[in-house]
Amino acid sequence: MSTIAIAVNAAISAGAYLMTVRMIPRLRDMFIKANLFGRDLCKKDKPQVPESYGVIIGCVFLISMFLFIPIPFTFDENAATDAVTGGKPLTFPHDKFVELIAALLSICCMIFLGFADDVLDLRWRHKLLLPTIATLPLLMVYYVNYNSTTVMMPNFARALFGTSVNIGIFYYVFMGSLAVFCTNAINILAGINGLEVGQSLIIAGSVLLFNFIELSLGHQVESHQFSIHFMLPFLATSLALWKFNRYPSQVFVGDTYCYFAGMTFAVVGILGHFSKTLLLFFLPQILNFLYSTPQLFHFVPCPRHRLPKYDQKSDLLHISTTEFRLDELNSLGRLMVKVLRTLRLVSWQEHADGRIVTNNLTLINFVLVIFGPVHERVATQMLMGFQVLSTLLALFIRYPLANYFYARET
Amino acid sequence: MSTIAIAVNAAISAGAYLMTVRMIPRLRDMFIKANLFGRDLCKKDKPQVPESYGVIIGCVFLISMFLFIPIPFTFDENAATDAVTGGKPLTFPHDKFVELIAALLSICCMIFLGFADDVLDLRWRHKLLLPTIATLPLLMVYYVNYNSTTVMMPNFARALFGTSVNIGIFYYVFMGSLAVFCTNAINILAGINGLEVGQSLIIAGSVLLFNFIELSLGHQVESHQFSIHFMLPFLATSLALWKFNRYPSQVFVGDTYCYFAGMTFAVVGILGHFSKTLLLFFLPQILNFLYSTPQLFHFVPCPRHRLPKYDQKSDLLHISTTEFRLDELNSLGRLMVKVLRTLRLVSWQEHADGRIVTNNLTLINFVLVIFGPVHERVATQMLMGFQVLSTLLALFIRYPLANYFYARET
Ligand SMILES: [Mg+2]
Ligand SMILES: [Mg+2]
Repeated sequence: MSTIAIAVNAAISAGAYLMTVRMIPRLRDMFIKANLFGRDLCKKDKPQVPESYGVIIGCVFLISMFLFIPIPFTFDENAATDAVTGGKPLTFPHDKFVELIAALLSICCMIFLGFADDVLDLRWRHKLLLPTIATLPLLMVYYVNYNSTTVMMPNFARALFGTSVNIGIFYYVFMGSLAVFCTNAINILAGINGLEVGQSLIIAGSVLLFNFIELSLGHQVESHQFSIHFMLPFLATSLALWKFNRYPSQVFVGDTYCYFAGMTFAVVGILGHFSKTLLLFFLPQILNFLYSTPQLFHFVPCPRHRLPKYDQKSDLLHISTTEFRLDELNSLGRLMVKVLRTLRLVSWQEHADGRIVTNNLTLINFVLVIFGPVHERVATQMLMGFQVLSTLLALFIRYPLANYFYARET
Repeated sequence: MSTIAIAVNAAISAGAYLMTVRMIPRLRDMFIKANLFGRDLCKKDKPQVPESYGVIIGCVFLISMFLFIPIPFTFDENAATDAVTGGKPLTFPHDKFVELIAALLSICCMIFLGFADDVLDLRWRHKLLLPTIATLPLLMVYYVNYNSTTVMMPNFARALFGTSVNIGIFYYVFMGSLAVFCTNAINILAGINGLEVGQSLIIAGSVLLFNFIELSLGHQVESHQFSIHFMLPFLATSLALWKFNRYPSQVFVGDTYCYFAGMTFAVVGILGHFSKTLLLFFLPQILNFLYSTPQLFHFVPCPRHRLPKYDQKSDLLHISTTEFRLDELNSLGRLMVKVLRTLRLVSWQEHADGRIVTNNLTLINFVLVIFGPVHERVATQMLMGFQVLSTLLALFIRYPLANYFYARET
């Protein structure tokens, strides 16, 4: 019975939480000795904080999932071993089994590559390559298992394309891109205490809420159970990390955690067949990415760090800025900053000599532009609040609105 | 057709070799900057050598295998997708598919944990824990897929036990122990230039030779094909590493490589159903382990490093030593050193005050006890030569001798 599998998964997750909470403080010295630490620049004394704790969370997550592997098949009557022949019955859900293992392979590979990035400090182009590598097993399994690459069309497009369209190779490109996007999106909405874990907790909670709603509606039961099996241990280990990573951070999570979280979301989105809904939950990350594009693609000068500036006297975060002259930018860059200025989406300071000073284009700085200098803890809370609002919006789009655009699948 | 799959695998392996050979020298600075380097103590100028290159080899191996995933099923007529329904045929080899993915999961997990060990410098007890964790997916898949835990009995035992005996849980303990043994056995027969990779190359070559012999005899064709699919890319990437790791080493391989190699061997041994033959190929490692036990379990004092001593003047390696007084040892320790001395397996120097000086108990030092001081390159060659002799012995035991002990399976 599937409810038993979820219950066992919840019990393993609880154990994982307790184990992680005990482990985290004990391993501090090991990380410092291994040169894995950073300075927390937004504190008065700029303390040394051990970095890359995502590797611990990832390990505990993997062990939990390894132990869980046989559970869904032990409690599934379709999978029961034939008592006479000792063989697998014809109803054995082989596809589910291999999906579970392939999903773990992709996640394990991403944790490994994330940790390698933290240690070896890979270059920017690798940030796109690594998640692509890690998604390969998933795509290969999808290819062998289904190779079904048709997508449902919205109502208004059905006259043109029919109910569904086979998009072939582009479906694989889409899946690969989703993994690249999810892993990097969390990694660039980061930098103040607790934000990486905070946003991941809310996304994981949103995915779980969505899975349970769909389960209760009886939609695609297996896919949503599959997602729950990954999200519960992810939520549990992330909660344990949150205890130590929230303001004031005792540990930093590193690229390892961002990659691990992003890949886990991508995996459940792809194999759970709800990648569109998943993207709705990533609204703040999408906005942050779009807002960042002028700097990420160097239309506007991008300093190495775009973190807010810490003011020691007031203990508040202020916007950090970038400086340029309009005539230094190419025409596309000039257009971008003019649009941003007209829409009042950036701070704007024009000096007599033509130098222009604007905030660095990150969602964190944007919050500070709107609300003025705030405390670091408050900045994280505001962004997490925005993440919650996005989830509510996503569920609104997904349920009442989607019915306008898609005919009900029954 | 299975021959096509092997040919494609060989082509991918050749590509992997070329890629690795190009990558290794380029990444040197990245490793040095990340603090991943060691001093080569057996050279005059004690040069700085980048460490943990196993992580690169492991990555290339994983990418090669990820790309290979669909191949065996694309060229297998049993696996051909039904042209009418688009579904999988009943003959689709689901068990082979999930074994391939699970094997990759175990190997990927071990590379990750090995790299974590290199970076974080984990404690001794973890060296036993990590391979156990990494074997979990394999054991879980074995449990779900077969849960067949019967072993064939040798002829002389059949009267007592029957042709085969179900050993239940002990079969899993055996598989877990095999992984723990293989990973650590390579890790402790190490320390002079090229030895880790050299022995792994010969073991991989031996496994491949054995697989092809069995294939030509038509024995358990699928299992041996499975093994070949892993051994070819492993051999190719290791050959590329050997080019830079052999005397004088330009790069060190780290625990990462030893764990990766050991786990890959364990995986093909377990899933290829030739774990007993595999252990025969590990004879030098087994002897090294047995010879080391008095020091590993602290019956005899064990210095932190047991490497041979480098003599700068002659450029030769001499034995390194440990010192103790007989009355400091417990009775079991005294028995061990007496046996070793009587069998002339150690150097023995007794001082007037009762202090005894013997060589450190490693196979490398043993070679130096027997042959006297030799050059580092020669020491590696001698140990690799011994590895080749072990393979010949293993094949002799496996083929002519085994017929005495096991009835022919047809
Ligand atoms: Mg990095
Ligand atoms: Mg180590």
